[in-house]
Amino acid sequence: MAAALALAERGRGRTAPNPNVGCIIVNAGRIVGRGWTQPGGRPHAEAMALAAAGDAARGATCYVTLEPCAHASSRGPACADSLITAGIARLVAGLRDPDPRTDGLGAERLRGAGVEVAMGIAEAAARRSMAGFITRRTNGRPFVTLKLAQSLDGAVAMASGSSKWITGPEARAHAHLERARHEAILVGRGTWQADAPLLDVRLAGLGARSPRRILLSRSEGPDGWETVATPGDIAMLADTDHLLVEGGVQTAAAFLSADLVDRLLLYRAPILVGGGLTLPGIGLADLTAAHGRWRLHDSRMLGSDQLQVYERDDRQRDREPV
Amino acid sequence: MAAALALAERGRGRTAPNPNVGCIIVNAGRIVGRGWTQPGGRPHAEAMALAAAGDAARGATCYVTLEPCAHASSRGPACADSLITAGIARLVAGLRDPDPRTDGLGAERLRGAGVEVAMGIAEAAARRSMAGFITRRTNGRPFVTLKLAQSLDGAVAMASGSSKWITGPEARAHAHLERARHEAILVGRGTWQADAPLLDVRLAGLGARSPRRILLSRSEGPDGWETVATPGDIAMLADTDHLLVEGGVQTAAAFLSADLVDRLLLYRAPILVGGGLTLPGIGLADLTAAHGRWRLHDSRMLGSDQLQVYERDDRQRDREPV
Repeated sequence: MAAALALAERGRGRTAPNPNVGCIIVNAGRIVGRGWTQPGGRPHAEAMALAAAGDAARGATCYVTLEPCAHASSRGPACADSLITAGIARLVAGLRDPDPRTDGLGAERLRGAGVEVAMGIAEAAARRSMAGFITRRTNGRPFVTLKLAQSLDGAVAMASGSSKWITGPEARAHAHLERARHEAILVGRGTWQADAPLLDVRLAGLGARSPRRILLSRSEGPDGWETVATPGDIAMLADTDHLLVEGGVQTAAAFLSADLVDRLLLYRAPILVGGGLTLPGIGLADLTAAHGRWRLHDSRMLGSDQLQVYERDDRQRDREPV
Repeated sequence: MAAALALAERGRGRTAPNPNVGCIIVNAGRIVGRGWTQPGGRPHAEAMALAAAGDAARGATCYVTLEPCAHASSRGPACADSLITAGIARLVAGLRDPDPRTDGLGAERLRGAGVEVAMGIAEAAARRSMAGFITRRTNGRPFVTLKLAQSLDGAVAMASGSSKWITGPEARAHAHLERARHEAILVGRGTWQADAPLLDVRLAGLGARSPRRILLSRSEGPDGWETVATPGDIAMLADTDHLLVEGGVQTAAAFLSADLVDRLLLYRAPILVGGGLTLPGIGLADLTAAHGRWRLHDSRMLGSDQLQVYERDDRQRDREPV
């Protein structure tokens, strides 16, 4: 399942409105097929893996991060049917598909055809892998990642506005890789006016994966840019399940105030700036209200900078809504 | 030597103007004596370990974090002589004593008496262990640790001044343990007026280790407090090799501007405050000047908070003085 989850990452940010699924088919201990949801959402991961496996799929085990779909469409047959036809003997699936057209029906159909089915395997990892798809289904908006490149004292720029550079080349390369995992990037008008950022993916081989550019602005955007008037309007962005909010601090505060951030990507350089630009108010009543909202998910060094990834802590939210 | 270094920590913050040394005596694979510099600087670690070892010191190996002193004083004999008299066969020492009354003479005298001597063992660790003593000798002032308890966006308090609490109980307990490792703690007048802090060590069994309290102020301090008018005046604090600067951000900035901080103790809570109090200007000309000053030494979780310890990066300083 770890291999299927890794394959699923290949599609992240390119499969909306479909989920980015990963699939691997194993026969007698040998991998005979690999698949992941292709750009635009089709073919599905299972279809790609079955095509690679051919006759070797007969009697094989299929590992897939999401329950195979039970609904055929004009763009392809139901994956549950394709797996049965190919003679898959055993299915190991991550998340049950929340799409009401499947939602357990895929597994049911496979079981009915004599396939051994295990579902809910590595479910937490599968859920994280498809956070964009799930957030769209659950909250009707993209999964939002907020990126901040900071000094140890929280400055994203000097008071003069200069931010070249807080972080080093390794952290900046990683930030470009993150761009490639999002359908769209959003900045505020201040950042656009100051930097007129390209927001492209400047990594060898990934130039074609540059996401769409969104401006947070009540007036019309420049050529090649879409606009949203308020953070809440991101719900209307078509084919966008992953949105990266890149700057500046006013825009970050607007999204945080609206409680529209699911993940923090903090790149922290080992420097002190002092008197720099930091996050403005986010509507906090008191310090108690600040706690229990974020949970550390990942921490690593990138050169001399540290990357920390925090995720919205829904366990606390459920207990203590703010 | 690791055991001797651990023993040396017991004296940290209580031995000024003497170094906090650790010592262990091993005979035929058995530890026969342990010692560490006692409060006020005497007895020395070697004297304490030799007293414990008694006759078992004959033919034994002595591990000590600093070269044994070669100079007798009214407060005790030279440790080099005591080790020779006790019949130590082998000496393994960390740092060569920078005190001109010893500075290699201790090792020389031991070698002259037929003792096998290895010096410079775990020297970097020994140097860090005695950073207070070395900074006093080298720079004529205490080793300064700056403590900041921050949110992810660098706030040490809300805009209202409220800072109870940014960090959790584990981090606060650790901060109290750090207090016990310093001869003195300094705060600014603003922090004193707002909080009238006790600055004591609220940990079971360590109440007696509460450090002296220093106020950064041009006017007279309250009862039980010493004062320094400027950060540079810390050089005049008697019997203070380790100074902990605890707040607030104006005081932190004053010490950073004066380039008088050797170590950063950053306790970072998984919260965003927004618009809070952050570090004011520290006289930085541009971002380039901010880099190369700090090196991550330690990082650990304390409950849901993260402690990061940064040390002054002298390698960079030597190359590129700012």
